[in-house]
Amino acid sequence: MKYHRLMLDVTTRVSPLRFTDHLELLDQRELPGREVWLHLRDADHAVKLIRALAVRGAPVIGLTAAYALAVEARLRPELASLQRAAARLASARPTATNLARAVAEVMSAIVQAPEARRFEVALASAQAQHRADAAACLAIAAFGAALFPGERVTLLTHCNAGALATGGIGTALGIVRHVHAEGRLAGLYACEARPVLQGARLTAWECVTDGIPVTLLPDHAAAGLLASGAVNGVVLGADRIAADGSVANKVGTYALALAAAAGGVTFVSAAPTSTFDLSCARGRDIVIEQRSPSEVTRLGRRRIAPEGVAVYNPAFDVTPPDLLTAVVSERGVARPVTGDTIRMIGS
Amino acid sequence: MKYHRLMLDVTTRVSPLRFTDHLELLDQRELPGREVWLHLRDADHAVKLIRALAVRGAPVIGLTAAYALAVEARLRPELASLQRAAARLASARPTATNLARAVAEVMSAIVQAPEARRFEVALASAQAQHRADAAACLAIAAFGAALFPGERVTLLTHCNAGALATGGIGTALGIVRHVHAEGRLAGLYACEARPVLQGARLTAWECVTDGIPVTLLPDHAAAGLLASGAVNGVVLGADRIAADGSVANKVGTYALALAAAAGGVTFVSAAPTSTFDLSCARGRDIVIEQRSPSEVTRLGRRRIAPEGVAVYNPAFDVTPPDLLTAVVSERGVARPVTGDTIRMIGS
Repeated sequence: MKYHRLMLDVTTRVSPLRFTDHLELLDQRELPGREVWLHLRDADHAVKLIRALAVRGAPVIGLTAAYALAVEARLRPELASLQRAAARLASARPTATNLARAVAEVMSAIVQAPEARRFEVALASAQAQHRADAAACLAIAAFGAALFPGERVTLLTHCNAGALATGGIGTALGIVRHVHAEGRLAGLYACEARPVLQGARLTAWECVTDGIPVTLLPDHAAAGLLASGAVNGVVLGADRIAADGSVANKVGTYALALAAAAGGVTFVSAAPTSTFDLSCARGRDIVIEQRSPSEVTRLGRRRIAPEGVAVYNPAFDVTPPDLLTAVVSERGVARPVTGDTIRMIGS
Repeated sequence: MKYHRLMLDVTTRVSPLRFTDHLELLDQRELPGREVWLHLRDADHAVKLIRALAVRGAPVIGLTAAYALAVEARLRPELASLQRAAARLASARPTATNLARAVAEVMSAIVQAPEARRFEVALASAQAQHRADAAACLAIAAFGAALFPGERVTLLTHCNAGALATGGIGTALGIVRHVHAEGRLAGLYACEARPVLQGARLTAWECVTDGIPVTLLPDHAAAGLLASGAVNGVVLGADRIAADGSVANKVGTYALALAAAAGGVTFVSAAPTSTFDLSCARGRDIVIEQRSPSEVTRLGRRRIAPEGVAVYNPAFDVTPPDLLTAVVSERGVARPVTGDTIRMIGS
C-alpha cells in the first residue's frame, strides 16, 4: 500500500489554470517576476496566448484548448462556428499532439448535445480531461521515481515539464517531486532552456515555490556535468512521441541524450499517453516548428545580437529511441524503448 | 604559390586592441550595441578588465597582459613592483595558459634591461608577441581551411575565436575567413554561447562587420542541426590544450563534439602554440574556472531567474582527444589527435 500512499502525498502549490465562472490562465511570460492571471475571452484569444507562449507545455496546451472550446460554446453555440474554432485551436502549434486530441474529445461531446447544453457538456469534457491529466501525472511520478532507486538521487531536467505544463504535479517534475517526497532527492539541476528560458524562469520558480533544491545551469554546461558523474538521471517531458519511440521535445533534448549516453546516465522521457502519436511512424516524420528570430536576437526589449544576422530557431528536436533509457506514461514504463514497448504504454 | 597569396589576402576590419602612445582596448561587454574604447591605466586595471570579460579570448588576454606590463613598466619601473604586477596579471584567469606565458616573456625581457629601458623592452616584447599572433592566425587559417576541401562549405562555430580574441584574423574565425576569401563559404552557423553570449554579441558582430553570412542559433539547437547533415564542419578555438590532446574551451564544446561525432561532422580546434600546455598531462588535470551566478540569473540589469536558485556556471569544459578530428596550430595539423601529434604541432 506504500505505492498509493506516496501517490497521494505528492502535491504542489503551482497550478497554471483554474475554471470558476470563467477560465483564468497564469501568464507564463511574466514569470518569475510577476504572477499575472489572464481572463480567457474566447477560442481566438486562446490561440493567440498559446502561440505567444503565455500558455505552454503539451498537456496544458491541450487543456487550455479544451476549456477554450467550452468558453466558445457558451458564446457561440452554433455547430459550424464551433467546428471552425476547433480547427483553429487544433493548429495553434504544429508539434504538440495533445492539442488536436483534446479539441477532438470536446468536439465529440459537443456534436452529440443539443445547442442549449453544448457549454455544459464541453466544460464537463474539459474538466474530465483536467482530472485525468492530474491522475496521469501521479502515476507517471510513481513509475518514474522507481527508475532511480538510490538513497540520494541527483536529477537533471530541461525546459519545464512541471505543474506549469500540466493539470497536475507535472511529468518530469512529477518524478522529481515524488523522489523529493520520499526524502531521496539530493538536488535538481535545471537547464535554463534558451531562447525562451522556461528552465530559468519556470522550472526554477516551481522548485523554489515548492521548496525543491534547484541549481540552474546554462544549457551547454550540462554535457560536462553529465560526464562528471555528479548526476544520476535526466528526466524530461515530451511534446510528441512517435510509434518507434522517437521523442520530440524542447530543443536540446537530443544533445542531453548524447551526453547522458556518453556518461552512462539514465535518461527518461515522461509523458501522458495523450502525447503519444502512434500514427506517426518515425521520428523524422514529426513536423518541427520553427519560431521567431526575435526570441534569439532580443531579450525582452533589449537587442543582444547585431542587425543583419539570420537565425535558426527550432522549438524542438527529435531524440532517437536508442538514446533513451526509458519512456514513462501513466500506463507504465517502456524499457528498452522500442516500437513494441511504446505500443504497450502509449495506447 | 597560391598558398602564400591566399594567406596575404585574408583580412579583417576588426581589431580589439591598439597601442599608440597608450594601450586602448575595445570594451567587448558593450558589443554589439556600442564601440567603446578603454584607455588602460595600469596592470591592476588590466586584471579587472580581464576578469570582467571586457577583454576575452585566450590570445588577446595574453597580449593585453603583455602590453599592461609595459604600461606598468613606464609608471613603476622597479623590478620588485613589476614582479608583483606580473604575478597578479598571470593569475587573472586560471584556465588560459597564454596569460602566464605572455607575462613571463615580457618579464624575461624586463629583468635583463636597466630600469630606464624597461618600458621600451617590455613594449617591444608585447609588440613582437602581437605580430607573432597575427602571423600564427594566418598560418592556422591556411592549414585549417585545407581540412574542408568542398566547393560549398557550411561551418559552425561556438563562442568567439575570432579577431576579437586574437591579435589577427582569429583562430577558428580565421579558418572561416580563409574559406570565405576563397569563395567557398556557403555560410557560418554561430552558437550564441550562453551565459555571456560571445557568439550572439561578438562572433555575429565580427561576421556582419566583415560581410560573412552568419546564422545565429541557441546553443542547444546545434546538436539537431549537426544530425541533419546541413553542416560540413565545426571549428572552434581552445583556451588550453593538454599534452594528451584534450581541449579546454568554452563550455559547450564537449556537447558539440559529441553531436559532431554522432553526425559524422569534422570537428576542429584551432589555437596558437601559446595555448598548448604540454606540462599538463591530461584533460582532467586542467583547472576549470567557475564564474559568477549573476551571469546566468541576470541579463544586463534584468533578473531572469527567481531568487533562491543555486547556479552551476563553469567557464569551460574539456573535450577528450578521441572526439576531435584535428587540432590546428600555426605549425600544422594534428590528425588524428594523439599525444605524439600534439607534441609535433604544439612545441
